[in-house]
Amino acid sequence: MGYRYGRWTPVPRAGECDTVPATDLVNGPVSALDPAIAARLRRSPDGLVAAIVQEAGTRDVLMLAWMDDEALHRTLTTGRATYWSRSRREYWVKGATSGHHQYVRSVALDCDGDALLVTVEQVGAACHTGTHTCFSDELPAVPGETA
Amino acid sequence: MGYRYGRWTPVPRAGECDTVPATDLVNGPVSALDPAIAARLRRSPDGLVAAIVQEAGTRDVLMLAWMDDEALHRTLTTGRATYWSRSRREYWVKGATSGHHQYVRSVALDCDGDALLVTVEQVGAACHTGTHTCFSDELPAVPGETA
Repeated sequence: MGYRYGRWTPVPRAGECDTVPATDLVNGPVSALDPAIAARLRRSPDGLVAAIVQEAGTRDVLMLAWMDDEALHRTLTTGRATYWSRSRREYWVKGATSGHHQYVRSVALDCDGDALLVTVEQVGAACHTGTHTCFSDELPAVPGETA
Repeated sequence: MGYRYGRWTPVPRAGECDTVPATDLVNGPVSALDPAIAARLRRSPDGLVAAIVQEAGTRDVLMLAWMDDEALHRTLTTGRATYWSRSRREYWVKGATSGHHQYVRSVALDCDGDALLVTVEQVGAACHTGTHTCFSDELPAVPGETA
């Protein structure tokens, strides 16, 4: 990716991940995302929305990740779940290095515009620790009693 | 709630919601949450972790909310899903005003310590708009093709 004519435009790079800013702080989010969708997003101060990832077949909740406009655009148009890594500050095509691909089945936006539900077909483990989901650490909870 | 002896301690108030700071900026998070659990949380700069809410029976993902240490403590110990409202800056027992209660079935922490999966029995609509889930706004997505 390179900064040209006031927008980020694709320049070939090695690997599937691009190290670029999540947002252009002067001009706001810059991405090929449909402006009608972009207008409905309510982003965090660092330009992100939360992405809950659910497995299509089992309906297991697999992980929580983050997307900026461009990651959402790539997720909607490539069929491959693509996130913004807050720690590495780069785009991250799930499975690009691990082989644990996520093939997109559907994407829904919530009522507030600040969270996405991404339904995927998961290949292998969703979690980098090797477990099927990232939510394998059960906490002790007193179950609520229905009335 | 009142500030006593360096900790927030319960003082009866009208209603089910308390308007108190999410965190004590001097002493860090103050709550009755088990310190062993608190030590595993990786909080956002405003002291919160994301809480994905899933319905136990249908496995529908209902909503995304936020918890500080005290909201998690209340969720784990009262059996009623309790969040921190970022807009109202107060604790929020789901269903306290709407009657759309969430009875806790289980709570799991993710591998990063920054997201929770709360499984609940949902009474009525989870979304304040009256829909069953908050994720009813489907976006146009090109489905990914499995290899």
